[in-house]
Amino acid sequence: MRTVDLILRKRGGEELSVDEIQYLINGYTTGEIPDYQMSAFLMATYFTGMTDRELSSFTDVMMASGEVLSLGDVPGVKVDKHSTGGVGDKTSLICAPIAAAAGVVVPMISGRSLGHTGGTLDKLESIPGFRTDLTLDQFRAQLSQLGLAFMGQSEEIAPADKRLYVLRDVTGTVESISLIASSIMSKKMAEGLDALVLDVKVGDGAFMKKQVDARRLAAAMVGVGRRLDKRVQALITDMHQPLGYAVGNALEVMEVSQTLQKAGPADLTRLSLELSARMIHLGKVTSTLDEARKVAEDKLMDGSAYRKFKQVVEAQGGNPQSLDRFELLPNATGMREILSPRAGFVSAIKAEDIGRASAMMGAGRSRKEDVIDPAVGVILEVKAGEKVESGSVLCRLYYTSEENLDEAADLVEDAFRISGARPEERELILEVVS
Amino acid sequence: MRTVDLILRKRGGEELSVDEIQYLINGYTTGEIPDYQMSAFLMATYFTGMTDRELSSFTDVMMASGEVLSLGDVPGVKVDKHSTGGVGDKTSLICAPIAAAAGVVVPMISGRSLGHTGGTLDKLESIPGFRTDLTLDQFRAQLSQLGLAFMGQSEEIAPADKRLYVLRDVTGTVESISLIASSIMSKKMAEGLDALVLDVKVGDGAFMKKQVDARRLAAAMVGVGRRLDKRVQALITDMHQPLGYAVGNALEVMEVSQTLQKAGPADLTRLSLELSARMIHLGKVTSTLDEARKVAEDKLMDGSAYRKFKQVVEAQGGNPQSLDRFELLPNATGMREILSPRAGFVSAIKAEDIGRASAMMGAGRSRKEDVIDPAVGVILEVKAGEKVESGSVLCRLYYTSEENLDEAADLVEDAFRISGARPEERELILEVVS
Repeated sequence: MRTVDLILRKRGGEELSVDEIQYLINGYTTGEIPDYQMSAFLMATYFTGMTDRELSSFTDVMMASGEVLSLGDVPGVKVDKHSTGGVGDKTSLICAPIAAAAGVVVPMISGRSLGHTGGTLDKLESIPGFRTDLTLDQFRAQLSQLGLAFMGQSEEIAPADKRLYVLRDVTGTVESISLIASSIMSKKMAEGLDALVLDVKVGDGAFMKKQVDARRLAAAMVGVGRRLDKRVQALITDMHQPLGYAVGNALEVMEVSQTLQKAGPADLTRLSLELSARMIHLGKVTSTLDEARKVAEDKLMDGSAYRKFKQVVEAQGGNPQSLDRFELLPNATGMREILSPRAGFVSAIKAEDIGRASAMMGAGRSRKEDVIDPAVGVILEVKAGEKVESGSVLCRLYYTSEENLDEAADLVEDAFRISGARPEERELILEVVS
Repeated sequence: MRTVDLILRKRGGEELSVDEIQYLINGYTTGEIPDYQMSAFLMATYFTGMTDRELSSFTDVMMASGEVLSLGDVPGVKVDKHSTGGVGDKTSLICAPIAAAAGVVVPMISGRSLGHTGGTLDKLESIPGFRTDLTLDQFRAQLSQLGLAFMGQSEEIAPADKRLYVLRDVTGTVESISLIASSIMSKKMAEGLDALVLDVKVGDGAFMKKQVDARRLAAAMVGVGRRLDKRVQALITDMHQPLGYAVGNALEVMEVSQTLQKAGPADLTRLSLELSARMIHLGKVTSTLDEARKVAEDKLMDGSAYRKFKQVVEAQGGNPQSLDRFELLPNATGMREILSPRAGFVSAIKAEDIGRASAMMGAGRSRKEDVIDPAVGVILEVKAGEKVESGSVLCRLYYTSEENLDEAADLVEDAFRISGARPEERELILEVVS
């Protein structure tokens, strides 16, 4: 088998066999296939895509390149939830406790922020003492005991995907539906799950800018799950404005606490409940989705989801009191208000710019090595569709350093679109792919 | 400027500026841009192509990456001819002396064989004593004196193209019209030419399998020439069967000698005359192409082209007598006849297979390091359209070693298509692009 022949066939849109895909990925992981051939292969894949069969093989081989968790000794049905990344998207911290409170086992393995989107691990680590570097034994024990544990992805999970991702990042081959789908699914399928609920974000603040692309990505991932015998469902949800009001790590944890105490934003609550319901349904707690929706709402309303979250925080070394007493969370030292330049209706809030401004103030990373400031971020005062007066507050920036502050403020100001007419309401949950 | 952004823009089909192309090529040549980014860029270029402006910039920057010959002190109009490579294509050795005999200055810088196609340098070096490693001063002096000199491409010509070609070869990015056009033209434009006649081969024995691709390549190269202020014309010619009867280095030199003595194959003579006429016309010896055709024919018929070739052979250290006494050329030690399995008409002779068989016997290289056997090759006995009897000779293999002989014989046998009905005649010169 010659690598260049496989590149040529992929370039021509031909289907590669399992053996050929194995040869490529394993050869690349061992260093026998050089970067320059793999990057040409990836760019050809960007243009010609993958068949369903290729996608499953690709995912399978990447998954098999590393450790595959065995959670067989943990009783219960294991269901995770994964989002493709948005701004203000803290649903994982809400739906995981709801589902766990309902009896689903939720082994949540998450990532960190990169670029303008946040990461679940960073949000959790803004809780004083919270540790995400569990050993696998600790992870398993906590799952057995509490039904929920949060952990960072170990280096041993899908190492081929890690190597490929680094290469894709510098060769302009990130935005391939097939490569994104196989990257996500190779990691998730290595977690020993029974089922998975995906939240594919679409909009200017998301990776997928168009609904048709989000649908293709969702369908690709659901298809991979099916061929690997896992129950997988995907929601396609709007990311044309941040989810909820808070953007920034500790700020988002505060909003999570409020939401778990029934005082959260409507959009965040609604999406978290729908995701929880699907986890509960796929987790076989109920036989219908409607029953699952009822269970999810009950677990939120009766406070058991909030209690579950506090137990998990405590179990992982965090201070659960900080969820009630926000002064115990990292707090910014300065605040700047962004005012509306004129009266009208908020027609859009460009999520990407809000995310970038927040990251710029220290809430995110532009490179992996960057250190995060958990306290900083943005709190929206209004959301799309609301009426504003000239000079009324659109949002507040919370900062600890004035470096980049003016730039962030400009970005945020430009992110708000104010129009004369009341805009049409956008749907939050656009589609279900299952 | 970030390389990945340029890759992304090329991936999206956007036009890059001269500065950006310069950044890419110079960065790659100096090693600042790694292979893996360049190969992704090349694959993106394969899919999205280049605009005319990009193609000119790309060519110009590659040309400027090395030495650009100055032939300003050589009097006369300098015109070269370049073929994209075919099987049995020895027209350079015929049209160059014809054009030079007509008063055109022909600085012919050529390549070596690779794969199934031959190289002008290898053919010339089968003449005992012939040297192609002239210094630039020798080259200039001979051009001034005889109007024709043959030389190999120096390492200093378009080094960026050399580096890129090595990478393209292993990353499946050779077959890009834009990259082929810029590669050829960057080298040719570095030769200090005033005009260039291109012979773009199309057919199974050529790089371009389809006429539409050959036309696109021809148009791209002619366009680059125009934007760099050079007169460039291209013929698109058939390569569905070998040109002439001889394939193999010394065998082809013998056929060149016969053709220059008015006893050559009809197709080879016709194409060589047309190419010569265009060189003579672009070289401003005549004001019309029809006059140039007349001059070309005169120079062939009155023997002055043959005398010119012998003078050049002698000037470059070769034995001119070997052109009249073929026993002085390298001769094979064995011969095998390939017979027709049935009566009928030769409907096609797959040029690529004839070329591969010849290379397999030693006439060509599969790797750059391979040493060529100048004596071996194939002599066709019949050409497409001719009638054959069962058992009549289709061609003869000339060999010096029996290694690979059976395999070559099988390949050659399969190359001949014998059909019941007389096939339609194919055009030799399909199009002119100017």
